Amino acid sequence: MTITKQSCLSSRRFLFDYLLLFLLSTAALASIFSDDAEISGRNDLFREILRDEAVERLHELGKVSDADGYLERTFMSPASVRAGNIIRGWMEDAGLRTWVDKMGNVHGRVEGMNASAEALLIGSHLDTVVDAGIFDGSLGIITALSALKVLNINGTLGKLRRPIEVIAFSDEEGVRFHSTFLGSAAVAGILPSTALQISDKRGMTVQEVLKKTSIEITEENLLQLKYDPKSVWGYIEVHIEQGPALEWLGLPLGIVKGIAGQTRLKVIVRGSQGHAGTVPMSMRHDPMAAAAELMVLLESLCKHPKKFLNYDVHCNDISVESLSTSLVCTVGEISAWPNASNVIPGQVTFTVDLRAMDDMGREAVIYELSYQIYQICEKRSVSCIIERKHDANAVICDSELSSNLKSAAYSASKKMIGEVRDEMPSLMSGAGHDAMAMYHLTKVGMLFVRCRGGISHSPAEHVLDDDVWAAALAILDFLETNVN
Amino acid sequence: MTITKQSCLSSRRFLFDYLLLFLLSTAALASIFSDDAEISGRNDLFREILRDEAVERLHELGKVSDADGYLERTFMSPASVRAGNIIRGWMEDAGLRTWVDKMGNVHGRVEGMNASAEALLIGSHLDTVVDAGIFDGSLGIITALSALKVLNINGTLGKLRRPIEVIAFSDEEGVRFHSTFLGSAAVAGILPSTALQISDKRGMTVQEVLKKTSIEITEENLLQLKYDPKSVWGYIEVHIEQGPALEWLGLPLGIVKGIAGQTRLKVIVRGSQGHAGTVPMSMRHDPMAAAAELMVLLESLCKHPKKFLNYDVHCNDISVESLSTSLVCTVGEISAWPNASNVIPGQVTFTVDLRAMDDMGREAVIYELSYQIYQICEKRSVSCIIERKHDANAVICDSELSSNLKSAAYSASKKMIGEVRDEMPSLMSGAGHDAMAMYHLTKVGMLFVRCRGGISHSPAEHVLDDDVWAAALAILDFLETNVN
Repeated sequence: MTITKQSCLSSRRFLFDYLLLFLLSTAALASIFSDDAEISGRNDLFREILRDEAVERLHELGKVSDADGYLERTFMSPASVRAGNIIRGWMEDAGLRTWVDKMGNVHGRVEGMNASAEALLIGSHLDTVVDAGIFDGSLGIITALSALKVLNINGTLGKLRRPIEVIAFSDEEGVRFHSTFLGSAAVAGILPSTALQISDKRGMTVQEVLKKTSIEITEENLLQLKYDPKSVWGYIEVHIEQGPALEWLGLPLGIVKGIAGQTRLKVIVRGSQGHAGTVPMSMRHDPMAAAAELMVLLESLCKHPKKFLNYDVHCNDISVESLSTSLVCTVGEISAWPNASNVIPGQVTFTVDLRAMDDMGREAVIYELSYQIYQICEKRSVSCIIERKHDANAVICDSELSSNLKSAAYSASKKMIGEVRDEMPSLMSGAGHDAMAMYHLTKVGMLFVRCRGGISHSPAEHVLDDDVWAAALAILDFLETNVN
Repeated sequence: MTITKQSCLSSRRFLFDYLLLFLLSTAALASIFSDDAEISGRNDLFREILRDEAVERLHELGKVSDADGYLERTFMSPASVRAGNIIRGWMEDAGLRTWVDKMGNVHGRVEGMNASAEALLIGSHLDTVVDAGIFDGSLGIITALSALKVLNINGTLGKLRRPIEVIAFSDEEGVRFHSTFLGSAAVAGILPSTALQISDKRGMTVQEVLKKTSIEITEENLLQLKYDPKSVWGYIEVHIEQGPALEWLGLPLGIVKGIAGQTRLKVIVRGSQGHAGTVPMSMRHDPMAAAAELMVLLESLCKHPKKFLNYDVHCNDISVESLSTSLVCTVGEISAWPNASNVIPGQVTFTVDLRAMDDMGREAVIYELSYQIYQICEKRSVSCIIERKHDANAVICDSELSSNLKSAAYSASKKMIGEVRDEMPSLMSGAGHDAMAMYHLTKVGMLFVRCRGGISHSPAEHVLDDDVWAAALAILDFLETNVN
């Protein structure tokens, strides 16, 4: 982990734009898409397919769960396989040729007029977090298929200038294997072959999980999943914003300028297991107390990076400034062994999810965090291991694709409400997306859809029916303008 | 929770004795029981039954587990039922009449010469923690049955002055229901009927779990489990020390003067669940970060109670002094929801196990802890609930029973090595035992057995074969002297 002052990536400009948007008067822009009565009259906008059926499909897919009472669909679980089959049916309904690849990704493709032309890929993920909302991932797959279904009905699907391929990726959330983008990373050719041997909580590897669904993957045919960059024109993805900006602005759609870089750590703290009643406090090497101190440190560091990071040692001032506004850190998962109330644990394990717009700033935080973790563990005479499970650098979206998506979003909005006063906003994404992996294969562009309260990864996640419609209509407009 | 200066129970004397023992030269007393060659010649000490068979039974029972690769036997689990059946067989082998009561306790009884005389009860527990050692609980059951087997073989079992009943209690550790002493509390008549409706992690109640093993318990027949105090003479229990004192003293056996009081809390912290990448640090209501702060507070308070407690407000100076040497606090169990690395948790729950020799001091700690927990939760805008799951006051063992057990331990030691320079030490117990519940029914006495490194609740738990023998021989001597 080397950190140089020169290589720090400045994200000042993005942050400035981002903050500017928040400062715009929400009053001036508020609720320009809220007049349902006005919209509902426009039957020429394929309301039945792009809105009603798309919303119905979102709810149908949202019921496909491995759990009772909440939504959980992890990599290649029984519910994921069922969801893949349903999506495959919708792909065929849109006139696409379909297949499932050796990483469980579901593909639907139409060749158009020129099968050898560079293809436009459109994707999102079919897996979910535990206790998830129904829009994260599914929205991008379903709106793309709805738009293609319209082209199929219109008879223009076979006349497209270039192939279009929709991919429902098998793993973006990384819940099961703590290693995100198994699906899109395989297609982008950046998934290391070692990923096949990662184990889930029950000790099953990625390879074994795939074998259980009759998919025989080897190191060799993993490499064959990689698309030839020359065969691809670009990748676009529709996704819920998972943040509050569009709601604050009163707009249904926004363009993504870039995606924050992220790192996922696993911290394992080992101490001396013992009886809760007989080991004096002064003689303990308690990994739970140590883990608590480490989590308090993490929160302090991420809330106030300026207090911890030294400009000269860690990074330049731009990176540190950027961290102050964009850095977020989360301990989402924790476990103790043997996890009994009357036993001092022998081991406590927790995850750290760390994201920032500035890659060098993120590295500086990890460097400082690791240093302080080891110091605390040494002081407490417990053993600490920090495993780096996942890394993704920040991604900058392609300006041409973004510009075309912006025009399409504007055009869709105009069709729906007749008049749009402002262009669609450009946002940074704090959440990771499959586009981060696909960026290694081709240029990427993303469209964000407003979600209520900015809430995601929760059953309270919600997108207005009309915003689903706006997104699908924007994709349709994009395809008609750029691929037709 | 009212705290008065007057009602504080002083445990200064006990602590003084306890500390004095630690100051004794271990060199002078070291390893007086280590000469295996010298002991092995004495076949009159029923070595085959009291040592070899008892050790063999400990290992046999230690293999009866619900888990692969480690020992786990919680209340009425399949392995617990199997263990109960094995113990019942050993009871019958010792000439006892056996039955299983409606709380799953396994009983073996011999009436002796006078079935209406007050009975001596001898017990310990057959359940274990998760990833347990093989001696905790089992040692007390097996050594008692080995001693009774000798009496049976000698033909003296039917000539005893009073009935003797061995009870293998179904639940002391409380792993499954977070409420210890389900077994012995029912026999002592202190188990509230509401205990039948406590649920385990899977939502099964105590009543339902018992029904699964064909035991129909109702509130009414729970009351009938209570023994008539007039029918009971006293209760004795052999248990591993689970602390380092006997090893430091170089002695195999010790007498228990009293057992620390304990409280078990469940702390539930609820915040705002959300996406790990999109909610700024300043807008979070993260229950994991809050839980970490609470756990750090708990450790500080329990390490340095003097810094937190005010003599006038909380307790008298004796209580606070007592806490400084005896207070231990443990967070042994933790869980987060939904427990995914890229989700800010919606809820974090953890347990607090709190023990002290001084009951009023313990209450003062809980009062101060609760106050500070609520303050931290309010500051962080998360909701906190503190549930008090279990309470047991400190217990003082009966002086007559203790004196008789001390003589028996001394006599057994003398028989084994020919000469004992010092009497058996009297210790306080930081660990809870079934004797705490039985204390509400009758006078109690306990014998501690040395365990390696003071380690318990761990697979590293170990008792020397000769120390098992010494314990069984002491019980035999006690029975021959006091019941024959």
